[in-house]
Amino acid sequence: MNLVRSFEKLNEEKVFKDPVHRYVHVRDRLIWDLIGTSEFQRLRRIRQLGTTFFTFHGAEHSRFGHSLGVYEIARRIIEIFKYRNHWDDSETMVTLCAALLHDVGHGPFSHSFEKVFGTDHEKYTQEIILGDTEIHRLLDMQGSGFAEKVADVIGKTYPNRLVVSLISSQIDADRMDYLLRDAYFTGVSYGHFDLERIWRVMRSHGDQIVFKLSGMHAVEDYIMSRYQMYWQVYFHPVTRSAEVILTQILHRAKRLYQEGFHFKYTPVPLIKIFEGTMVLRDYLKLDESVIMYFFQAWQEENDAILSDLCRRFMNRRLFKYVEFTPELLSAKNDLIEAFSAAGIDSEYYLQVDSSSNSPYDLYRPGKEGASQPIRLLMPDGRLHELSRESDVVGSITGMRRTDVKLYYPKDRVVELPDHSSAKKKIKEILGI
Amino acid sequence: MNLVRSFEKLNEEKVFKDPVHRYVHVRDRLIWDLIGTSEFQRLRRIRQLGTTFFTFHGAEHSRFGHSLGVYEIARRIIEIFKYRNHWDDSETMVTLCAALLHDVGHGPFSHSFEKVFGTDHEKYTQEIILGDTEIHRLLDMQGSGFAEKVADVIGKTYPNRLVVSLISSQIDADRMDYLLRDAYFTGVSYGHFDLERIWRVMRSHGDQIVFKLSGMHAVEDYIMSRYQMYWQVYFHPVTRSAEVILTQILHRAKRLYQEGFHFKYTPVPLIKIFEGTMVLRDYLKLDESVIMYFFQAWQEENDAILSDLCRRFMNRRLFKYVEFTPELLSAKNDLIEAFSAAGIDSEYYLQVDSSSNSPYDLYRPGKEGASQPIRLLMPDGRLHELSRESDVVGSITGMRRTDVKLYYPKDRVVELPDHSSAKKKIKEILGI
Amino acid sequence: MNLVRSFEKLNEEKVFKDPVHRYVHVRDRLIWDLIGTSEFQRLRRIRQLGTTFFTFHGAEHSRFGHSLGVYEIARRIIEIFKYRNHWDDSETMVTLCAALLHDVGHGPFSHSFEKVFGTDHEKYTQEIILGDTEIHRLLDMQGSGFAEKVADVIGKTYPNRLVVSLISSQIDADRMDYLLRDAYFTGVSYGHFDLERIWRVMRSHGDQIVFKLSGMHAVEDYIMSRYQMYWQVYFHPVTRSAEVILTQILHRAKRLYQEGFHFKYTPVPLIKIFEGTMVLRDYLKLDESVIMYFFQAWQEENDAILSDLCRRFMNRRLFKYVEFTPELLSAKNDLIEAFSAAGIDSEYYLQVDSSSNSPYDLYRPGKEGASQPIRLLMPDGRLHELSRESDVVGSITGMRRTDVKLYYPKDRVVELPDHSSAKKKIKEILGI
Amino acid sequence: MNLVRSFEKLNEEKVFKDPVHRYVHVRDRLIWDLIGTSEFQRLRRIRQLGTTFFTFHGAEHSRFGHSLGVYEIARRIIEIFKYRNHWDDSETMVTLCAALLHDVGHGPFSHSFEKVFGTDHEKYTQEIILGDTEIHRLLDMQGSGFAEKVADVIGKTYPNRLVVSLISSQIDADRMDYLLRDAYFTGVSYGHFDLERIWRVMRSHGDQIVFKLSGMHAVEDYIMSRYQMYWQVYFHPVTRSAEVILTQILHRAKRLYQEGFHFKYTPVPLIKIFEGTMVLRDYLKLDESVIMYFFQAWQEENDAILSDLCRRFMNRRLFKYVEFTPELLSAKNDLIEAFSAAGIDSEYYLQVDSSSNSPYDLYRPGKEGASQPIRLLMPDGRLHELSRESDVVGSITGMRRTDVKLYYPKDRVVELPDHSSAKKKIKEILGI
Repeated sequence: MNLVRSFEKLNEEKVFKDPVHRYVHVRDRLIWDLIGTSEFQRLRRIRQLGTTFFTFHGAEHSRFGHSLGVYEIARRIIEIFKYRNHWDDSETMVTLCAALLHDVGHGPFSHSFEKVFGTDHEKYTQEIILGDTEIHRLLDMQGSGFAEKVADVIGKTYPNRLVVSLISSQIDADRMDYLLRDAYFTGVSYGHFDLERIWRVMRSHGDQIVFKLSGMHAVEDYIMSRYQMYWQVYFHPVTRSAEVILTQILHRAKRLYQEGFHFKYTPVPLIKIFEGTMVLRDYLKLDESVIMYFFQAWQEENDAILSDLCRRFMNRRLFKYVEFTPELLSAKNDLIEAFSAAGIDSEYYLQVDSSSNSPYDLYRPGKEGASQPIRLLMPDGRLHELSRESDVVGSITGMRRTDVKLYYPKDRVVELPDHSSAKKKIKEILGI
Repeated sequence: MNLVRSFEKLNEEKVFKDPVHRYVHVRDRLIWDLIGTSEFQRLRRIRQLGTTFFTFHGAEHSRFGHSLGVYEIARRIIEIFKYRNHWDDSETMVTLCAALLHDVGHGPFSHSFEKVFGTDHEKYTQEIILGDTEIHRLLDMQGSGFAEKVADVIGKTYPNRLVVSLISSQIDADRMDYLLRDAYFTGVSYGHFDLERIWRVMRSHGDQIVFKLSGMHAVEDYIMSRYQMYWQVYFHPVTRSAEVILTQILHRAKRLYQEGFHFKYTPVPLIKIFEGTMVLRDYLKLDESVIMYFFQAWQEENDAILSDLCRRFMNRRLFKYVEFTPELLSAKNDLIEAFSAAGIDSEYYLQVDSSSNSPYDLYRPGKEGASQPIRLLMPDGRLHELSRESDVVGSITGMRRTDVKLYYPKDRVVELPDHSSAKKKIKEILGI
Repeated sequence: MNLVRSFEKLNEEKVFKDPVHRYVHVRDRLIWDLIGTSEFQRLRRIRQLGTTFFTFHGAEHSRFGHSLGVYEIARRIIEIFKYRNHWDDSETMVTLCAALLHDVGHGPFSHSFEKVFGTDHEKYTQEIILGDTEIHRLLDMQGSGFAEKVADVIGKTYPNRLVVSLISSQIDADRMDYLLRDAYFTGVSYGHFDLERIWRVMRSHGDQIVFKLSGMHAVEDYIMSRYQMYWQVYFHPVTRSAEVILTQILHRAKRLYQEGFHFKYTPVPLIKIFEGTMVLRDYLKLDESVIMYFFQAWQEENDAILSDLCRRFMNRRLFKYVEFTPELLSAKNDLIEAFSAAGIDSEYYLQVDSSSNSPYDLYRPGKEGASQPIRLLMPDGRLHELSRESDVVGSITGMRRTDVKLYYPKDRVVELPDHSSAKKKIKEILGI
Repeated sequence: MNLVRSFEKLNEEKVFKDPVHRYVHVRDRLIWDLIGTSEFQRLRRIRQLGTTFFTFHGAEHSRFGHSLGVYEIARRIIEIFKYRNHWDDSETMVTLCAALLHDVGHGPFSHSFEKVFGTDHEKYTQEIILGDTEIHRLLDMQGSGFAEKVADVIGKTYPNRLVVSLISSQIDADRMDYLLRDAYFTGVSYGHFDLERIWRVMRSHGDQIVFKLSGMHAVEDYIMSRYQMYWQVYFHPVTRSAEVILTQILHRAKRLYQEGFHFKYTPVPLIKIFEGTMVLRDYLKLDESVIMYFFQAWQEENDAILSDLCRRFMNRRLFKYVEFTPELLSAKNDLIEAFSAAGIDSEYYLQVDSSSNSPYDLYRPGKEGASQPIRLLMPDGRLHELSRESDVVGSITGMRRTDVKLYYPKDRVVELPDHSSAKKKIKEILGI
């Protein structure tokens, strides 16, 4: 059976206007239909960058555009590989589908959800591809085993490592898109790199993607852009403050539900997840509108903690932070005690959050797996690992940077009476 | 009393990173505090372009960023006017507040809401400024009458016409921002014009804003950009299709509520508006998360029309359209009959939608009031109306273009049995 | 004979980094070799926009980059046409060569040169393609008749009108590139349009290029961008002032040469052109370095007019201008008399310059020939002329705008003694 | 005497449209007049990036635009400093003049000229400011000692170190402009950084410029952008190849002149420099048109080396290169011998060129002096050196990278007969 021939082309190419890639081009019926499924359309209601919009107001873009972007980058790389006769065309559709669908399992504010409920968006992506969904039905119509192939690419178990590398590696279509897209929507100057130059120096070498030595600087530039984006955007302490609060709201709501609290606004779509009995069908009903709806409504609940945290989240009255130094660590028990004396529940109002990465060895938050090193193709045909050739990358390889912060509601501390010894204690410990 | 002196400056300027203006600069305590109010933060949950994201997936930006942008443009124009000694500094803060707050009364999908429920976002803006709100309290602390002044600027009754013109006129800070911003987020090439050149040729002339003749081409370019944005983006037929559906959902839900339908998901925040008893407090709880939450939930309601329309909206299964020609108008009754014969309720599934403007005499959707002509300042000090000097503008002035389309669910027609005479009739009338 | 097969591909694609198109891609040996000829490299020494750099200091770019850009646009359009099976591949190389070489006959400051010496850059382009040049030898090696074909495309006599239209029509690769490129280098906001959208709606229809109705707005936008570029950039009065002076220098130098003036710096490369005996070989030695070298040197010549005009040109001490009104026309003799009384030679120091175009019917300066109307492809397959469908274009079609200015050295007038009656007369007539 | 008050303002602000900074604003009569001098206008005829246009065809921009850009950046930084009351306004004009004039002493292809003739563009800048020039006369009219102050800023001997730092330091107005401008005109993705963020975190601290800790990432990003620009653009081996040839032409022409060679085209403007008797007056007549004029003409000279090198330069037939390894160094004598055997003059056709820098400790080519470290202002008011706080900068500080290449005319080697032992020897040594 020749899979290649069986994919139906659209009569006329369709395009999406995209601010990052100008146009996203769709020529295959299957891709067009996948975009039209309810599971894919749901990505419009899940922000690409979670709570980042509180820090960078432009970052309101959803995973929908990003998913189209990853597809488009994969499509263009394949075109270049085809032009160079480096590409097995029978892998085209499985690659494009995996690129398009790689994030389809994301739920609302995935990072916090995964922390509180132990969900796993990559597992859901595979379930959506393989389970009882519109997406699965479309994939399955392409021939038996096709859906499984797409899922295997996502799961990184697909035998053709080249295909896997295009979707998940240190320089994959996913990262190429999100760096550029997130830079565009936040408006920052970081995150730009020469996408087309990187494409031009990419080579398939056996089952891996390597880069011609002559393109080393473009790769260096990509590494440094990525590093800047992590520290300037993804790990921004204000974003993490909003995430801390969001996480605490979910914790509190779950606890209240488990304790039989009588909600004015019962979170119907969340009950199954609170009870640990959620199935795919339930998961697919969750999106950020649902969360925002309840958070807004819960400002009126009769639980002081829940309503306060929701007011903070909706109205951007976030926690402040201090560096979590070793001194602070040793004083933590005193701090908890002082919070307790001041009537502030430290379980919900005192939170350590840690971000960590290294410039060349980065993982996307929530992205698993060991990353392959980046390899350069030398003029003599051998492969050298990037850090061996690049002085800049070499000097920063393995250098790990960690940022640990302690989040707390400064306003609550400030409004304590000045004579309060708890206030004095807290201010002393936090150095504020 | 000298108002100017009484406004408190921030110790250190604060900025927002903005993709359109690079940075939004805040130097006044009042502006900073207004941005922090719950009424202003709510704008994060109301999209700038309603249903446009269905057509241009990048258009997911909210009115929050736009409001900051209008403020920033007003601030920069005032700086230029001050440099030229054309500006009465006692008007600065009232102008900046009006610029920042001009859209604060917008609700979710304002256009459709206003159509179905007769609400008026400008009225709400004034109520928010004058009523029992955080915003009002902040404004009122600046001295008696200050909040009223801001409301008067919004209401265009403020005596200083120059201030009014900066916020509402043919070339005001509002339009300058939204053209650039909407172009940026949709990614279209239209909508760009030379903002700084227009600022440089703006002059205050008595109580109006005029433009030096030497800047005529920049103004022409702005007019043409605006025209292109209207036809390419704001009036896009796919966007209007989504809006037609949204409007029908609201109609249907209201009707069902009034008829005592038993909702699985009772739209608590919408009840007052269904009953016509909504007050400001209720209005402020509405945002697009609320709407999206119920639309999603209602896919499961036991009303075939409501659940179908909600499925269409959530999953972008929109109505198709044909030009609503005079021939179609005369055949409309036959069409309704055929729909009825086919079992499709024409009240909800057949909708005429009309968009209309002229390149030089445009109104923003939902923006009222007669627009002042644009005046050029001639070298001899006289004022000439723009279309008198500009051949291009002259030739298109008053030229009105109207686009009327008939929207209907093509899928429902297609799936009728081929032998159905209703199907044949519908296809014949619609010419499909 | 199958021409298509005979063209040699490069082993590895080569690219030029281009600020407008990101990369210019070269895959054919012939294109690569043509770029390497001395005749093509000479375009680096001829500015794209003549004296415009005096007005927009960024406009220092040469015809070299533009020529690559036209080639690249033609290449991409052909790729799209090929994807749609609208393209006869045996026309590819002739089209690409014509695109690359279309401006190769330009000399230094062509506009002024053509005015003074009656040269014709299109004629030279054909001579370079057909004559004793490196370019001709390369083309000729591709098979007999190939060079002639390329020349025929430039001369618009090539039988395949589609190929001609790609290089010379209202929306051709030449104009597409120069609008975008000139906007980029000058830094103006005009001149942008959605290049890729226009490509997507282009269709070959018999022997002409037409545009799908759905792309009408993109074409409108292109027309308006073009109009703005003409009036804001190409016809800028300061640029024309520099051109007036340049023209007068050439006139004066020629006259002096003919009169046997003894130059300190004999313009060896210009002698043949002064004598009217210039052949291609001589022409190819001319570039803007030659002109600038002599203009600079001639500041020291013993002719007051020549040295003064050269000082003006080199140091940007340009002529001022007034509108050349009908009143001024009737007073022209008086003005000449007053100039003469003031000791200013009106032959060199008083010059009328006229620019004229209409928004939809534009010719590039120095571009000949009747322009074909732009045609839209209607959904029913018929062709409608653009102005019939587009209200905006319709209202401006045929509208011709003319700008006539009188240039003169204001400084010379100002420095006349105040009691001088000539000064009074001149100021009165010019209204200064 | 109060210098501040004495500077005349223009009646109306003047602007230059600039692709990098949108507009350059001029409000002072003196700045306007300086721009109009023949010495400043001459910068239009000297390219910003020398021979880089052979590699990046967009890099045809001159030092004129760059000089305006440096002035504009200095102007904006001063405005920010004034807003924060960090600035002594009596230093404004001397700073702006120094910013505008800092490059005015550059000659054509400065790098090569300085190598061959021992000229020094910084010395000429000072001479132009202090000597018999239009610029000097304008500066001198501002009061005695003013011109000297401007020259002292350029010479880095001015007592106010803050003023000196704005013009010459690791992050000065000069570098800020050239990185952005050169990136813009070449079209590369490198070279971008957040200019406005850097301005916002700049603080004057005593007599130095420091950066708030919160802006450390923006500074890191600037350092990395600079590094990329050096290796990707400024040190590009093709650019250096053209420079090698240019240098050899100047050497050859000087030698021929000294040996009494009879030129067909006597290089009148270069004679003084050949003879070592050039004075400022002569220097100011040199520009790149002069050089290009003679290089073009000399293609016809009767010296095989001179005419060949000129043909190479004009027609971009550059030398090829190999890494100059230690093995190659030991084989150099053999190589020279083989060249000699092959009849290729190694004095002109074999050239080692070395480029070297480190990412944090860079000097602009031709820029002297020890660079001050970059200091961060910590929240507690202390200053920390950048590499102490920034892991990335820390890991690369002092890391020096050197690139040494051997340039030679590969075409000459290739065309040697295959049986030639010299050819074999050369190919063996060069490994080609």
